[in-house]
Amino acid sequence: MVIDLDRSGKIPLYRQISTHISGLIARELLLPGQRLPPSRELAGSLGVSRNTVVLAYDELEAAGLLTSRVGRGTSVCDRLPPGIASVSRPAAEPFPLEGLFGSRWTKPFPPLLALQEQVSAGREERESVNLASAAPDSSLFPLEEFRDSLVRALRCYGGDLLTCGSARGFAPLLAEIARMLARRNIICSSENLMIVNGSQQALSLLARLFVDPGDTVIMENLTYPGALQVFRSLQANCVGIPLDEEGLRVDILESVLRRSRAKLVYTIPAFQNPTGVNLSPERRRRLVELCRRHEAVIVEDDYARDLRFEGAASPPLKAWDRAQGIVYLGGFSETLFPGIRLSYILAPVRIIQRLLLLKETSDLYTNRILQGALLEFCRRGHLARHIKRKRAVHRRRSEAMARALRAHLPPAVAWRRPAGGVYQWLDLPASVDALDLLMKTRQRGVFFAPDRLFAVEAWERGGLRLDFGEVAEDKIVRGVEVISAAIQETIEAGGG
Amino acid sequence: MVIDLDRSGKIPLYRQISTHISGLIARELLLPGQRLPPSRELAGSLGVSRNTVVLAYDELEAAGLLTSRVGRGTSVCDRLPPGIASVSRPAAEPFPLEGLFGSRWTKPFPPLLALQEQVSAGREERESVNLASAAPDSSLFPLEEFRDSLVRALRCYGGDLLTCGSARGFAPLLAEIARMLARRNIICSSENLMIVNGSQQALSLLARLFVDPGDTVIMENLTYPGALQVFRSLQANCVGIPLDEEGLRVDILESVLRRSRAKLVYTIPAFQNPTGVNLSPERRRRLVELCRRHEAVIVEDDYARDLRFEGAASPPLKAWDRAQGIVYLGGFSETLFPGIRLSYILAPVRIIQRLLLLKETSDLYTNRILQGALLEFCRRGHLARHIKRKRAVHRRRSEAMARALRAHLPPAVAWRRPAGGVYQWLDLPASVDALDLLMKTRQRGVFFAPDRLFAVEAWERGGLRLDFGEVAEDKIVRGVEVISAAIQETIEAGGG
Repeated sequence: MVIDLDRSGKIPLYRQISTHISGLIARELLLPGQRLPPSRELAGSLGVSRNTVVLAYDELEAAGLLTSRVGRGTSVCDRLPPGIASVSRPAAEPFPLEGLFGSRWTKPFPPLLALQEQVSAGREERESVNLASAAPDSSLFPLEEFRDSLVRALRCYGGDLLTCGSARGFAPLLAEIARMLARRNIICSSENLMIVNGSQQALSLLARLFVDPGDTVIMENLTYPGALQVFRSLQANCVGIPLDEEGLRVDILESVLRRSRAKLVYTIPAFQNPTGVNLSPERRRRLVELCRRHEAVIVEDDYARDLRFEGAASPPLKAWDRAQGIVYLGGFSETLFPGIRLSYILAPVRIIQRLLLLKETSDLYTNRILQGALLEFCRRGHLARHIKRKRAVHRRRSEAMARALRAHLPPAVAWRRPAGGVYQWLDLPASVDALDLLMKTRQRGVFFAPDRLFAVEAWERGGLRLDFGEVAEDKIVRGVEVISAAIQETIEAGGG
Repeated sequence: MVIDLDRSGKIPLYRQISTHISGLIARELLLPGQRLPPSRELAGSLGVSRNTVVLAYDELEAAGLLTSRVGRGTSVCDRLPPGIASVSRPAAEPFPLEGLFGSRWTKPFPPLLALQEQVSAGREERESVNLASAAPDSSLFPLEEFRDSLVRALRCYGGDLLTCGSARGFAPLLAEIARMLARRNIICSSENLMIVNGSQQALSLLARLFVDPGDTVIMENLTYPGALQVFRSLQANCVGIPLDEEGLRVDILESVLRRSRAKLVYTIPAFQNPTGVNLSPERRRRLVELCRRHEAVIVEDDYARDLRFEGAASPPLKAWDRAQGIVYLGGFSETLFPGIRLSYILAPVRIIQRLLLLKETSDLYTNRILQGALLEFCRRGHLARHIKRKRAVHRRRSEAMARALRAHLPPAVAWRRPAGGVYQWLDLPASVDALDLLMKTRQRGVFFAPDRLFAVEAWERGGLRLDFGEVAEDKIVRGVEVISAAIQETIEAGGG
């Protein structure tokens, strides 16, 4: 018997042996009654101690797969437990599942992560330049400080973090977030807040609160694909409003609100994803006023407000929310790291109460261990310091990208450097298709996010998104060179 | 100015001062233009260093709430930022939200955690005996080993745990779970598995995959309230099948399956919640065979199979699943601690693929930090040792409860000691209403879970669930004494 053992110590050797043997039995490569090599012999051939093999055989005996008799050694049991058989001999008639799925499955909705994976397939290669934001720059993660905060939180709160939580979240973290929001000119209490597993859960709960099939949801065209996926999965009628250099075209929004009954307006006012544009203060005020008048709830996704390169950020829409009709989403994936999976919803109590019920139905409550760690991380000032560092890094990277774009990009491509965030948008001329372009640059190891990932509606101009936040400056320059050359080639081929 | 400062060091003093002052401004207790006490004076009256007050004033100045001029001291800004005003002067017309909520809100569904909270309100008192399972026994949590596993995982995988994950889960943990399942006679690969935030998320995803309003879902009557809430929230037609001492009445299930088209059969075969009964091997086989024939998917919730007091557990239904029509749910909340929020779904690929799409829509992916910690916890043998210890503790507690029940319970109450798990069920005589009984025992500081929390359909007999897993033996005895006395009183009052 040859077993390919992993000797890194991650999986005990005896466990690897027992797993291998149970696999052989399941696939009928070892048959009922068949003898196994004596433990001493197998140990010798594998280069492990005899005791390791004995442990493996013992485990398999306990699982009812092997039997050992004095003088006869160890063999596969004559009557195997039911599970083993099920794999080796599949049923003649498989279970007729398709008729059982719910009606929403008649209209399929596209996978999200899989799509992004596809865009950046091959990104593992060291030489590739991934500007498609599928691989965060882990060298920026504050690993030490986070581990320290985690250990402190467990010391400070102990079993309190391991026990059942409330759907709303860990109370001391909610209080800390309320203090954070006060510094953004939003005065609120814990009553208006809840913690969720990332902004995607916030959107999913909100969609399930408001959207019936066919309901109109207004979004920026282009927008965050996760939001699009959530609303489409509930068969919402998603309407896109174009953006210009000041952000969402509020004038067009007004005419849309006049002729259709929209329930929600989902917007990313700060460093919009994917265009990077920051909504102007004047339009912020008009947006709030318009939605108030037309009785549409604003969902303000403020994921990147802390990431302004310099100076103070514009006040959030929520700061003007006198009528209590705005839901505000904030989180820590962008500022800290994506794996933290913690965001919050700030909303009027009438909305929060229902969202809590949906949260409870969805997964009872968010784990408190990471909430405790995040709290310590904030209290010890790590978050503020980390954001400061990140802003500086992003600014440098954005500058490097802008220099490279100025140097290499054909003049037919329009772009503006954003004032913060992590995204640089390029407007392509009509003759260049972003997806075709990606097919070319991929071959040269450069990845970006093409317009159609973000399109709510048909998108007349071509465009692409570059994420400068996650890539070192030298790679940014190389990426821009490759993309610029590919655009130039496409334009020339079209012209010829 | 009087500020009630918390000097535990958890929140910096300057932050407490700035929060207090911004609150005063928001509530118009400090008005625009109004002067604040000089920093030295306020520091003296609060017993803090002057620097602390200066820091607080600086922060409020940066937020645009305070202004300081040389020679004039510090005062509230004349023009406050927009957010401050919104709280102090609510809009005349509040936002008309009610018409915007989706149609599912026309049929309200009851909150889950809130209901349990209500049942055990007052449980904080040290003298109370909580047999309602709302407060897990944190003295059983393996805090040290878990902290150790967490630190090891961060050392071993580092930034890998902090970055984006896949909707399916952390691959090494999936492989570890597949090995665990092999020891339960279920041979599967990672392709059949996914990680979710606790079993409630598993149920929520499954319900959203299968259930349209009006679809029939069969469950044990009584059953786990979280499952009931999920299916009811999607307006499923929930049908309850009674249980006897061998578990689910498979004969009644058969007649129900014959006359109604059921999509799902949700069952808890091992140490059923709330009745504690273990489904007999004979019925397990029949259940699988029946659902196969009537083309209903079984959802097997095997939350407590590791918690058998002694001996080997019955094979899971999934081990007989040759037709690939069973979804198997397992998790770590019961064996490890509830705050881990990690469970898994094992299902045919056709189901898993769709569940992954729903998971992604719901919250992208489960945090990998705790998945890494759980993996280390399993690999180092902590989980196996912890389960062994927990089983022994539960056995002793169950014995103590059985002794107390034998000694004190009136003969009209029927009960059987379970062979594992954490729940003891009592069947009350018709004259005793469980909720009325709870009102009595609450006054004496004893809490339990009454039948109606678990009722899918009208429940002809009264009954109650006692959780012996979380309560020390002396408290168990006292709890049983109080409950027994209250039952006796009720019977006597009814007879008199």
